[in-house]
Amino acid sequence: MVERLAIVGVGLIGGSFALAARAAGLVREVVGFGRRRANLELALERGAIDRRADTLADAAADADVIMLAAPVGACIDLARALRPAARPDALLTDVGSVKASLVTGLEDVWGAARVVGAHPIAGSEQTSIAAARADLFRNRRCVLTPTGRTAPDALALVRRLWEGVGAVVETMDAARHDELLARVSHAPHLIAYALVDAVSASADGAAALALAGSGFADTTRIAASAPALWRDIALANAPAVRAALAEFRTTLATVEEALARGDGVALEALMERARRARARLGGA
Amino acid sequence: MVERLAIVGVGLIGGSFALAARAAGLVREVVGFGRRRANLELALERGAIDRRADTLADAAADADVIMLAAPVGACIDLARALRPAARPDALLTDVGSVKASLVTGLEDVWGAARVVGAHPIAGSEQTSIAAARADLFRNRRCVLTPTGRTAPDALALVRRLWEGVGAVVETMDAARHDELLARVSHAPHLIAYALVDAVSASADGAAALALAGSGFADTTRIAASAPALWRDIALANAPAVRAALAEFRTTLATVEEALARGDGVALEALMERARRARARLGGA
Repeated sequence: MVERLAIVGVGLIGGSFALAARAAGLVREVVGFGRRRANLELALERGAIDRRADTLADAAADADVIMLAAPVGACIDLARALRPAARPDALLTDVGSVKASLVTGLEDVWGAARVVGAHPIAGSEQTSIAAARADLFRNRRCVLTPTGRTAPDALALVRRLWEGVGAVVETMDAARHDELLARVSHAPHLIAYALVDAVSASADGAAALALAGSGFADTTRIAASAPALWRDIALANAPAVRAALAEFRTTLATVEEALARGDGVALEALMERARRARARLGGA
Repeated sequence: MVERLAIVGVGLIGGSFALAARAAGLVREVVGFGRRRANLELALERGAIDRRADTLADAAADADVIMLAAPVGACIDLARALRPAARPDALLTDVGSVKASLVTGLEDVWGAARVVGAHPIAGSEQTSIAAARADLFRNRRCVLTPTGRTAPDALALVRRLWEGVGAVVETMDAARHDELLARVSHAPHLIAYALVDAVSASADGAAALALAGSGFADTTRIAASAPALWRDIALANAPAVRAALAEFRTTLATVEEALARGDGVALEALMERARRARARLGGA
């Protein structure tokens, strides 16, 4: 059991982890820190945290594990600010959607042995503690990205915590994680934003959106995600995201060429291959 | 009240319309025709239709209104086959996602005065009668695309039927409908198919899809739609779909250029504009 867990950023992910970890008896005390006081009050009310830290130093003090559940772009500065007040052996982990550049930065700031990068594949376009729930990670994947410098006991503890909240844990090289996530998450977010913007900013955009059905709503749901978050993720993983977008554009060009020459056979073949791949995913 | 309504293609849309029209007392008898007998048996069992027609001639005989709820690519041939057995004054309507080329074709085959093109903006990637429900069209838009040749009483009757099942009806020029739907439906379907195919056909595609979360599932849900349906829709509306895809590509290029030069300000501005437009849509 972890004596004291500090969660920096008690939103959907941090709040859900806190609820789940407490429900599973994995932690004795959870201290929460965040920018918005109302958010932390709600976290207290919902039983996600035991107490609110007023400063980063207060959050770090005597914590065994510190979880950064803040936007990717803020994590390294937060780690730097937490370090002086934290115990030398405090374990620092995060939940960021990008791993390579972030984990390297955290290692530099924190001391590499006690840093474990993690990315639970869960969440939605909502980011608030109001949407948090203890079963958010149940049967969802959580990727850990230890490096050659990670202490084995630190990795083992973070694995135990995520398995304890129901996640299916796997370890992976951070660069590989980032390439795979660029394809199934980072690039699709940019595609969704671009699609909404292309329609809404076009002549007659409002008329077009008035005729949007549930298909368009599904396809663009992630464009309701917080822009600052996804801006940082895209920038932090820019080479892999650009490669994924290039892959996508190549396939889209194939579709457009088939359409231009009226080639229903080629169109349907590509669609059918995609349909089968999509069917294997399920509703997720 | 319509004495006899024939529905050709008793799937999600045709079946839901039949359920709703019967529930609202808009029709005295509903006759169903379809390619798959099991489907029609289920439609009978669910109370969507009163009886099953064994042939198109049987379906057409003495029908006041014939609704084509079959794939877009099949409608003109069906109309041609129905015509000899139908009453001269029988009203022909459809539910296709493409209107201009389809309505022109139907007018040529049927006699223009008694043809009313319609497109209810409802449905999903599911197409079966099993998913049909009487409230599918409630508060959803239904676009009617009368031409200069449509008889006013025919248009009024189709409007009454769709309003009777709860839809918000508007009339629109067919070409304008097709341009707007290209942007919010036809092009997004092709984008979703292309996105799934780009990921799944890439090296490591299976590993990437294993890490797909609910965002990817939402964004690509419409890629589970029936390929033959969407192949025909895309081909029937190819110029508008290509224009919509070109618009999308231009916006995506703007995103990629911002990413390439690390321009977080430009990225966030576009994302924020998209987020606001998406927020106005709601969950739909």
